[in-house]
Amino acid sequence: MSAQAARAEAPQVPILLREAVGSIAVLTLNRPAARNSLSEGLIGELHAALNDIGSDKAIRGVVIAANGPAFSAGHDLKELTARRSDADRGRAYFAELMNACSAMMQAIVRLPKPVVAAVQGVATAAGCQLVASCDLAVASEAATFATPGVDIGLFCSTPMVALSRNVPRKQAMEMLLTGEPISAATAQGIGLVNRVVPAGTERDAAIALAQKVALKSAHTVKLGKEAFYRQAEMNLADAYRFAAEVMTENMMARDAEEGIGAFIEKREPKWQDK
Amino acid sequence: MSAQAARAEAPQVPILLREAVGSIAVLTLNRPAARNSLSEGLIGELHAALNDIGSDKAIRGVVIAANGPAFSAGHDLKELTARRSDADRGRAYFAELMNACSAMMQAIVRLPKPVVAAVQGVATAAGCQLVASCDLAVASEAATFATPGVDIGLFCSTPMVALSRNVPRKQAMEMLLTGEPISAATAQGIGLVNRVVPAGTERDAAIALAQKVALKSAHTVKLGKEAFYRQAEMNLADAYRFAAEVMTENMMARDAEEGIGAFIEKREPKWQDK
Amino acid sequence: MSAQAARAEAPQVPILLREAVGSIAVLTLNRPAARNSLSEGLIGELHAALNDIGSDKAIRGVVIAANGPAFSAGHDLKELTARRSDADRGRAYFAELMNACSAMMQAIVRLPKPVVAAVQGVATAAGCQLVASCDLAVASEAATFATPGVDIGLFCSTPMVALSRNVPRKQAMEMLLTGEPISAATAQGIGLVNRVVPAGTERDAAIALAQKVALKSAHTVKLGKEAFYRQAEMNLADAYRFAAEVMTENMMARDAEEGIGAFIEKREPKWQDK
Repeated sequence: MSAQAARAEAPQVPILLREAVGSIAVLTLNRPAARNSLSEGLIGELHAALNDIGSDKAIRGVVIAANGPAFSAGHDLKELTARRSDADRGRAYFAELMNACSAMMQAIVRLPKPVVAAVQGVATAAGCQLVASCDLAVASEAATFATPGVDIGLFCSTPMVALSRNVPRKQAMEMLLTGEPISAATAQGIGLVNRVVPAGTERDAAIALAQKVALKSAHTVKLGKEAFYRQAEMNLADAYRFAAEVMTENMMARDAEEGIGAFIEKREPKWQDK
Repeated sequence: MSAQAARAEAPQVPILLREAVGSIAVLTLNRPAARNSLSEGLIGELHAALNDIGSDKAIRGVVIAANGPAFSAGHDLKELTARRSDADRGRAYFAELMNACSAMMQAIVRLPKPVVAAVQGVATAAGCQLVASCDLAVASEAATFATPGVDIGLFCSTPMVALSRNVPRKQAMEMLLTGEPISAATAQGIGLVNRVVPAGTERDAAIALAQKVALKSAHTVKLGKEAFYRQAEMNLADAYRFAAEVMTENMMARDAEEGIGAFIEKREPKWQDK
Repeated sequence: MSAQAARAEAPQVPILLREAVGSIAVLTLNRPAARNSLSEGLIGELHAALNDIGSDKAIRGVVIAANGPAFSAGHDLKELTARRSDADRGRAYFAELMNACSAMMQAIVRLPKPVVAAVQGVATAAGCQLVASCDLAVASEAATFATPGVDIGLFCSTPMVALSRNVPRKQAMEMLLTGEPISAATAQGIGLVNRVVPAGTERDAAIALAQKVALKSAHTVKLGKEAFYRQAEMNLADAYRFAAEVMTENMMARDAEEGIGAFIEKREPKWQDK
C-alpha cells in the first residue's frame, strides 16, 4: 500500500473541530503542530463553518478557540513558499489566498450572531487579526499578541485592517513596526480584548460570555450587530438617520413587543427563535 | 371638579429645570419617579432649551444634570407601549420619536457652547447616549452606565451611534451585546467620561469644568467646537485644508488679536461677548 | 559696523540640528530661547529635512527631538503678530503659514520611514500636533502636553486634526476646550505617546526604538506605513481589498522572499537597501 493510500485510509484529524455547548458553536483550530497557522484549508473550513452557523437557528453564538500552545501563528508560510515555483511565482495564488482570508474575516463581522475569541496562547499576524475581527475576545493571562510580519519582510497589512479598528493609532503602529508582542493585560488596556482571565479558564469564560448574549432575542442581536458595523462607517447625521430606522423596525418586531411587555410586567421574556 | 381639571389647575412640576449659575445654564432632568426617562415631552424640552441657549449670549456653557437616584433610564417604555394601539401599531410615532431624540442629541453636538454631563447615578440606553453626546462628562463614583436595550428585545441602536464614537469597538460591543453596566471608573478608562469625582460633588465639578471653558473667548470656543466635529468626519488631507482655513479665519477675529496681544504683553485678555 | 551687519557676519546658530546616529537621522529643534516655537523658518527646515531624508537610502528612521526645557510651544506668536501690519492684516500670510505647517505635518505621515518623537518637555499647540503626527512617540516623565490655543483666543484647530486621530474624543475635547496640560502618564494612557521613560533618557529611547524598526526591511516598512494611513480612511470592505493587494505585492518583493526563507531556515535575513 502506498504512503498516499495509507494517508487516505487513515482516520484524518480534522483541522477545525466543531462542537455545540448548548446553543454555542465552539470552533477549535486544531493544527497545533503547525501552531494553528491559517492554511488555505483552515481558512476554508472556518468560512464554511461560519456560513453554516449563519443559517442554523439552533446556534446563537460562536466561540473561536484553539488547541495547543499557540492560538494562531497567522498564514502558513510553508504553504505560501511552495507556490514560489508557480509560473507567476505565486502571485495569483497569493492574491486568491489573501482575498479568501479577508472574506473569512469579514464573514465573522457579517455573521448575525456574536463571535467571541478565546485566546489561550500567542496570536500573531492573521492570528491576531482573527482576534481583532471577533466581536468580543477573552484572553488567558498567558496569551500574547503580535503583528510580526515586518520581521520576515511581509508587513501585516491585512491584519492591520482589523487591528487598527480596535486599538489607538500609535499602539497599532508600534505593534506593526516593531513586531514585538504585547501581553494580555496590555491588549486589554488598548482595547484588543475585553477580558483577561486565569490561564486555562479562557475557553469557559468565552463560552459563558457567548451564552450570556445567547439568552437575548436572536432577532435583536442580529439587527444590532449588523447596525453596529454599518453605522460605524457613516458620518454622524447619516448614522442617526440609519439607526433611527433600525430602532423603528426593531420596535415593530415581535421580540421588542414581548421584551418591553415582560419588562413592564416584571416577568421573563419569551423570545422567538428566529 | 374632575380629576383632569384638578391636574390642570395644580401647580405643574416642570420635567426640566433650568437655572443659571453665573454664565452656565444648568439643565436638570426632573422626572425622578420615572427615572428621568426621556419622554417625548422631556426630549422636546431639552431640545427647546438647547435652542434657546444657543442664541443667548449671556450663557457660555451648559451642564446637563438629573434629580433622583437615576441620571436617565432612556426612552419612556410606557409611553412607547401605549402607542401599540395606534392604527399602524405605533410605527409612525416610534419613527417620529427616534428622529426627535436623534435631533436633540445632535443639537448638543451642534450647540456652539460646551455641554458637560453631570452623572450622579445610572445612565442607561438613551440616558447613556445623552452622556456620550455631551462634549465632556463628569461622573460620580456611584454612577454606572449601560446600554441594556438588548435585554428587552430593543437593541440600543441610536445610543450606539454616540457610544461607539466615544469608546473602543470591543468595549462598545460588550456593553451593547451583554447589556451589563460598567462602573464610573471603567467608563473613564474607556473614554466615556472625563472625570470621576466623589458622590455628591459631580454637579459642582461639572459646573466648575463648564465655567473654566466659559472664561475663554466664546467666539473661539464656538469656532473650535464646530470645527472639531466637522474635521472628525474628513480624511486627513481634507481635515487639514479645512482646519487651516478655520485657523486663518480665527486669526482675523478680534478675540485672537486681543488674546495673542494679551499673552505677549503678559496681561489678562478681554474677550468680546459674541 | 552696524548691529545688522554684525548679525549677518556672526556664525549663525542653526534652528534645526541634524545628525546621524547609525541609520537614524536625529532632527533637533534648536530654538530653545523661543521655546522651539515653529516659526516659518523652522517649519521650512523641518519640511526640507524630511524631503531630503525621504530620498536618502542611508537613513532608515527619524527621531524628532528638541533642545532646552520645552519640546515646542507651537506657532511663533511674535512672528504672526508682526504681520498684523500687512495691508490685509496678515490674512494671506496666516493662510500660507497654516498650509505650510499642515504640509510639513503631513510630510511626516507620508515619509516612507518611521518617525519617532522624543519629548523631553512641554509640547503645546502645534508642538503637541508634531508629537501626534509622528508614527511613534517616547516621552520623558517630565514631559507635558497641551493644546492651549483657546486661552489666547486661537483655537488649536490644526493641532486637533492630529490629536483627535490619536486620542479618544472626550479626552481630546477636554484638552482643546480647557487648554490644560496633561502629564506624560496620562498622554500614554489615552494613546498620545507609546512610552514614558525617566527624564533624560527619552532621546536615547526614541533612537533605540527607531533603530529597532531600522533593522527591518526598508521596503517592507515603506509599504506598510503607507498602507496603514491609507486604509485607515477606508470602509472595511475597501480596506480589505486594498490591503490584500498590498500583501500580494509585498509577497512578490525580494525582501519577503528572503525574509520568509530566512525564517523557515532559521537564519538572519539579508535585506535589500531600497
